[in-house]
Amino acid sequence: MLKAYLAGPDVFLPHAAAQAEAKIALCAKYGLTGIAPFNPDLDLSLPPARLWRRIFADDVRMMRDCDIIIANLTPFRGASADAGTLVELGWFLGMARPAYGYSNSAEGFATRTRAHRALVPDPMAGLEIEDFGLADNLMIEGALAGGIVLPPDGFSRAFESLEVFERCLASVGSRA
Amino acid sequence: MLKAYLAGPDVFLPHAAAQAEAKIALCAKYGLTGIAPFNPDLDLSLPPARLWRRIFADDVRMMRDCDIIIANLTPFRGASADAGTLVELGWFLGMARPAYGYSNSAEGFATRTRAHRALVPDPMAGLEIEDFGLADNLMIEGALAGGIVLPPDGFSRAFESLEVFERCLASVGSRA
Repeated sequence: MLKAYLAGPDVFLPHAAAQAEAKIALCAKYGLTGIAPFNPDLDLSLPPARLWRRIFADDVRMMRDCDIIIANLTPFRGASADAGTLVELGWFLGMARPAYGYSNSAEGFATRTRAHRALVPDPMAGLEIEDFGLADNLMIEGALAGGIVLPPDGFSRAFESLEVFERCLASVGSRA
Repeated sequence: MLKAYLAGPDVFLPHAAAQAEAKIALCAKYGLTGIAPFNPDLDLSLPPARLWRRIFADDVRMMRDCDIIIANLTPFRGASADAGTLVELGWFLGMARPAYGYSNSAEGFATRTRAHRALVPDPMAGLEIEDFGLADNLMIEGALAGGIVLPPDGFSRAFESLEVFERCLASVGSRA
């Protein structure tokens, strides 16, 4: 079975462990082994400078062990997807391993960027807004085997919803 | 001479071409060949769906041609660095090519995230704030050979300032 690295801001959810389990169970339904970067055995008593390096090393080890990435690209604390998720997506692109991704947001990137700019002004005037009619930055769309999988009806889903994730799994199954 | 891919939201500047030239000139001063993902020959009359794929293909080709990445990780339209830059950073990590980066922001990631959340509410309650005393998400810090190079005096620089970029170049020179 293909091993899928389940990247995403899901790790920041208050119910991160349950979310990881739910995603892994859905992966199994579609013939995939899901590997979630959530480690319940992490020694949280470590000093911060050792703890984050441990998490980084664990995540890279898990990525190495996976054949594909399935990235949750739902916008997170900004106009674009979660920062750590994007580094991981780039890692799979660099390793020439297939990348898949989805977003629970139905809004286009340019629309979202303008809305963000209205709340948090740009650091200077005249900064361009990328507008190719995509769901996020073109480096993200280009990295993905089939583009970002989106809500099918044009309505955004709740941040923690797994409905679009499951659609993404179905599209992986049809390509793998 | 080492070839350095100059990733960053600099491409969105109103003076993007001049900024790319200035960065390339500074690279030469530190014994590096700078390659900026800014293509003045791009055929802007192409339909959007072809244009963005052309830019993506150009950027990947330039990355393949480079030995290292020097990423501008100044926060951009969110709590973290620019989305496209992060995919490119991950690409170099996946290719096991050295990655360097800098930020013109002197604020810590957790402080910045809280400030962002005050302006743009999180999509749901209870989402964790990553707080390891780092300048950005741990996947970014972990990807970099020497951590994020920051303003030396604890004061943020203007978004388009090249002062911290030059400090980063000096640190690359001492490691290369």
